[in-house]
Amino acid sequence: MRLSQRITTLSPDGDGWDLFYRARAMVRAGQPVTELTIGEPDTRTDPVILDAMARSAAGGHTGYADVPGIPALRAAIAARTEARTGVPTTPDQVIVTSGGQAALFAAHMAALDPGDRALHIEPYYTTYPGTIRATGGVPVAVKTRPETGFQPTAADLDAAAAGARTLLVNTPNNPTGAVYSRATCEAIAATAKRHDLTVISDEVYDTQVWQGEHLSPRALPGMVERTMVIGSMSKIYAMTGSRIGWIIAPETAIARLISLSLNTTYGVPGFVQDAALFALEQGDRLAAQVAAPFRRRRELAVGMLSQQQALTAMPPSGAMYMMLDVRATGLDGAAFADLLLDRHGIAVMPGASFGRAAAGQIRVALTVPDDRFATAFATLCDVAAGLAEGR
Amino acid sequence: MRLSQRITTLSPDGDGWDLFYRARAMVRAGQPVTELTIGEPDTRTDPVILDAMARSAAGGHTGYADVPGIPALRAAIAARTEARTGVPTTPDQVIVTSGGQAALFAAHMAALDPGDRALHIEPYYTTYPGTIRATGGVPVAVKTRPETGFQPTAADLDAAAAGARTLLVNTPNNPTGAVYSRATCEAIAATAKRHDLTVISDEVYDTQVWQGEHLSPRALPGMVERTMVIGSMSKIYAMTGSRIGWIIAPETAIARLISLSLNTTYGVPGFVQDAALFALEQGDRLAAQVAAPFRRRRELAVGMLSQQQALTAMPPSGAMYMMLDVRATGLDGAAFADLLLDRHGIAVMPGASFGRAAAGQIRVALTVPDDRFATAFATLCDVAAGLAEGR
Repeated sequence: MRLSQRITTLSPDGDGWDLFYRARAMVRAGQPVTELTIGEPDTRTDPVILDAMARSAAGGHTGYADVPGIPALRAAIAARTEARTGVPTTPDQVIVTSGGQAALFAAHMAALDPGDRALHIEPYYTTYPGTIRATGGVPVAVKTRPETGFQPTAADLDAAAAGARTLLVNTPNNPTGAVYSRATCEAIAATAKRHDLTVISDEVYDTQVWQGEHLSPRALPGMVERTMVIGSMSKIYAMTGSRIGWIIAPETAIARLISLSLNTTYGVPGFVQDAALFALEQGDRLAAQVAAPFRRRRELAVGMLSQQQALTAMPPSGAMYMMLDVRATGLDGAAFADLLLDRHGIAVMPGASFGRAAAGQIRVALTVPDDRFATAFATLCDVAAGLAEGR
Repeated sequence: MRLSQRITTLSPDGDGWDLFYRARAMVRAGQPVTELTIGEPDTRTDPVILDAMARSAAGGHTGYADVPGIPALRAAIAARTEARTGVPTTPDQVIVTSGGQAALFAAHMAALDPGDRALHIEPYYTTYPGTIRATGGVPVAVKTRPETGFQPTAADLDAAAAGARTLLVNTPNNPTGAVYSRATCEAIAATAKRHDLTVISDEVYDTQVWQGEHLSPRALPGMVERTMVIGSMSKIYAMTGSRIGWIIAPETAIARLISLSLNTTYGVPGFVQDAALFALEQGDRLAAQVAAPFRRRRELAVGMLSQQQALTAMPPSGAMYMMLDVRATGLDGAAFADLLLDRHGIAVMPGASFGRAAAGQIRVALTVPDDRFATAFATLCDVAAGLAEGR
């Protein structure tokens, strides 16, 4: 079968998930593995949310739901956005999508034509370049460095922006845990205005901030008209498996995104939308329950890191990950991750999965129960110390 | 906000849903409307299927599910395909998608690069041209005529095929109710081989056949390697709102489609997959329950049509629709549908929604309870008779 050029080039450098798949295979084979790989909260979706879903389905909400999202959910998402950012937001500026990933894809489809340059920040969430390539766009990475807290600089943004159409940013950031400062957000806005870029702002971790404050680029002056915000129930409410998210964008863009949704997904299950609506109606309670363990484990890890020298890290300001620089061990992130999995049954993501700039790093997800996390993290520190001493 | 060319041209001729939206607004405003528009079965998803979903969710299947589909469901879909078509099919030849529409989009993404010619049959399901345009492809309609039972002819297929990459066919057919004959399927296969086309075969109505037999083009010699089959739980199991479908394709294509899924949807809810698996495991029982009312209403309509002259129609061989030629009334399909909605509160789809070739037709969905359907269909016949007499 002849396949399109586009689909054969989605993952030209490997998709960065090799170690993850290897760890999953070991788990299936019955081997003990502590998985600190993907952003899957160890708390399951709260039973009260699942009850709301079951009630909706049993009550007959099993037919086609409104393709843009049911009106009550669009209104609840608009209200949440307005409450958290202070920016007036109407239901017509909201479309419900089949998860945050589908929102990222749709936003780029709405902004990019084949061949258009699309900026994203490196290190990046692994699907970013593939998502852009899937739309026919050309991904261009703007590198950030540990020394500047993985915040993009105004100079780097400006240097990359000539001729680009979009700028994808992510705060709180996966994989680095950075929460973008006001200065960073202002640089993003200034670059977008100077070069007429659409900002696609991935804010799916907006309730998981440990230090500083979440600021949405859309909230800066003049940015409502050039920003699409990506949101999701996945990380905020531990609803990863429900595949429901949203885009906030100007009404004209949403109208087109609805046409796209008709042709690509035909909407999201009504009973899942009712479950999301129920969760949002509970205020911050359920989201705070999901976030609390990540904050505890971050403190745990930061404490252990202060006792050793082999690993260097910026304490994450947000999200459910931390990036550790392993270069003092003499290994790069991939070799260190391999060794950790093979000898100690601990799975972490090699930094290179998030861009070559992070090749000396590993990403640790804070996603297993505290005691197990503490044990694994202590082992990780010991392994690093042993390697560093042996050099 | 600057939008992509692509997204602004998804629905250049209007999306064909105007009457549907107008009818929905009337329903919301409390007006009595009999909706014979979209393919939404009037039976809801069976409670035993919903119970399976609720059990799966409560049992903890609420995290990320395997992106290609859970292994047991891929195996069940492969087994179903093999049992119904006789073609050996492995789980590696299956990907689970967020519904049949997402499957149609993904299949075209896998086959088309921007600018590629993509054939589809007219009259067509309304999203077909937009789906092709969303991938950057150029939709080219191959017209079929009521006189030949809306079956595409070998000559018409061959004339359109030069330089094309794909051929999208749909049997049993929406909107015409045609079930493609062996001769038609052989013409499709011959054209595909002669012009090196990939056939995308939409078979979402494969359990709803009233006359003749469903034949999958993939089952013809040499076609496994050049066919992608679109399937869905929506119409077969009255699970339209669950948004779950699949693609059957060669393993190499499925591997690429998995990469695409990572970047566009990140899979389908695990609890929905468990519900689909449960439904498939019940054998033909649940599907037969869903199909039975459509067969009854088809008989009802065919009986009434035989008593009058103003409407001409081919009795549908499959699916949940019938096409009626209204030209003897002096009106085209759109004017007739408007009059029917405005004066009699009966909503049907204008034929032009499915392509200009069907402008003299209306499509009637067999999707309301028998007594209500009989009343509405009798009114429809009376209105047509009155108009035809008054000419």
